[in-house]
Amino acid sequence: MVHLGVILDNDQLLDVTALAQSPDGKEIGTLPQSMEALIHGGATSMAAISSALKTPESARYRLLLNEITYEPPLKPQKNVFCIGRNYREHIIEGNIANGRPIDSFPEAIEVFTKPPTSVVAHGSNVMRHGSLTMSLDYEVELGVVIGKAGRGISEKDALDHVFGYTVINDITARDLQKRHGQWFKGKSLDTSCPMGPVITHKDAIENPNALKLGLSVNGEERQAASTEEMIFTVQSIIAQLSAGMTLEPGDIIATGTPKGVGFASKPPRCLNVGDVVTAYVEGVGELRNIVVE
Amino acid sequence: MVHLGVILDNDQLLDVTALAQSPDGKEIGTLPQSMEALIHGGATSMAAISSALKTPESARYRLLLNEITYEPPLKPQKNVFCIGRNYREHIIEGNIANGRPIDSFPEAIEVFTKPPTSVVAHGSNVMRHGSLTMSLDYEVELGVVIGKAGRGISEKDALDHVFGYTVINDITARDLQKRHGQWFKGKSLDTSCPMGPVITHKDAIENPNALKLGLSVNGEERQAASTEEMIFTVQSIIAQLSAGMTLEPGDIIATGTPKGVGFASKPPRCLNVGDVVTAYVEGVGELRNIVVE
Repeated sequence: MVHLGVILDNDQLLDVTALAQSPDGKEIGTLPQSMEALIHGGATSMAAISSALKTPESARYRLLLNEITYEPPLKPQKNVFCIGRNYREHIIEGNIANGRPIDSFPEAIEVFTKPPTSVVAHGSNVMRHGSLTMSLDYEVELGVVIGKAGRGISEKDALDHVFGYTVINDITARDLQKRHGQWFKGKSLDTSCPMGPVITHKDAIENPNALKLGLSVNGEERQAASTEEMIFTVQSIIAQLSAGMTLEPGDIIATGTPKGVGFASKPPRCLNVGDVVTAYVEGVGELRNIVVE
Repeated sequence: MVHLGVILDNDQLLDVTALAQSPDGKEIGTLPQSMEALIHGGATSMAAISSALKTPESARYRLLLNEITYEPPLKPQKNVFCIGRNYREHIIEGNIANGRPIDSFPEAIEVFTKPPTSVVAHGSNVMRHGSLTMSLDYEVELGVVIGKAGRGISEKDALDHVFGYTVINDITARDLQKRHGQWFKGKSLDTSCPMGPVITHKDAIENPNALKLGLSVNGEERQAASTEEMIFTVQSIIAQLSAGMTLEPGDIIATGTPKGVGFASKPPRCLNVGDVVTAYVEGVGELRNIVVE
């Protein structure tokens, strides 16, 4: 069974699920036993966890971080919404690589999706899919997790609908992305959506549009930017995406990647078996995966 | 609560859920209580339903078809996979409308998705979304429901992975489809995926690639074709889609629409409030929805 945990300052974790199922937990109140329950529980669930953290008995339910195996922080109930071409310099490198006019920028968010079957955890393997693609690529992205349902959400209210943030690596088979017209096929291979390690609650992030993010392959830096370079802010993305379409608690949005992707490098480079890919977003987390056969 | 039912020959329906929850049902064996349970239960669940149909006691659990309210035949666990540009004549009408070379055909399936929030039942309202789109359009499609998981499924084995077929109306906001680059936004508005009325089990369909399908608006025929005109057959779609991506029981695939869509008409026409849209697939069903404010 997957447990819900809260990361503590000292390389430890409070096992909330174990606490909730214990006699100690029953005295605290309605503790959520899963991330889904936490998100749907809203302020009540967050308050229960805050209480738990202050209870001396909770000390019995701590684990060392290096002893646990990560699962994806959330089991997606629908495809992950993904925003393409949202960083100016990445759009330019893509325009050059694809022979498009260099100043061709989107006038509105470009949205595609990745299926739940593509989602894997921090520490999990990413399949190379060598028989299907010659050009597996990486894309570090800030992930937004929705906490409150809404349709037609205004930019002003957008962050009220956010539960928290995570790190997403939008693994992409460039040749399939191109051959199949729409981007879905190149974005949907099994294990092509590493996510995590955790969800950082929105209260810990002052401004999601001013976070450093980056990615390295085998320790070599490939991407290094800031979410302040996004053409469409987190608020704008939520407003545009929710226009006429209900966003639900637990929905996940990947907000686009900055420059430095493999296919636009000179010469182009792709991920190979054995590569260690590390993606990070400042204050949110560091997501590491290994490419396997 | 949503009940699982089996349509009988005499405008009646066997309420399988009610039977399963009754003492009569307990004697029959492990009857599924939902479409999801039926699909996951495989041959065992189908056999239990066959037994139920032969049991005299089941007569007590019949309803008249005109007394029931339809729900979507399946609650999607991920986005609906949709194939774009899969009928030759529809591709040509689209190429002309969009000023593309008339003989520009896809070399592989073009895939986009529609979120679970867009799915509505036979008889449900379709929102016009008048403040968001000037051009709401229709698209009748054969829907395929997956019954058995698989990745890298061959064309030869593809139909073994099918549970059944349904009718899908891929409602599309043409202006949003265009403005947002990728097609998702124009395909994802709430109520833009009418589906049903039912799922027809694959045993009742000899060849999914030879079914008449069509659509009318207020009784006026707009689309009339056959699935034999599809560029990529159901088998080819399943093979291409499952290459590197696991298909799961309950997954839904919309296989593309034939010619006759509104935006390619001369002059273009779009759906208006009050329109009654009826989509059908031969041997599968007739799906009717009304457009509302």
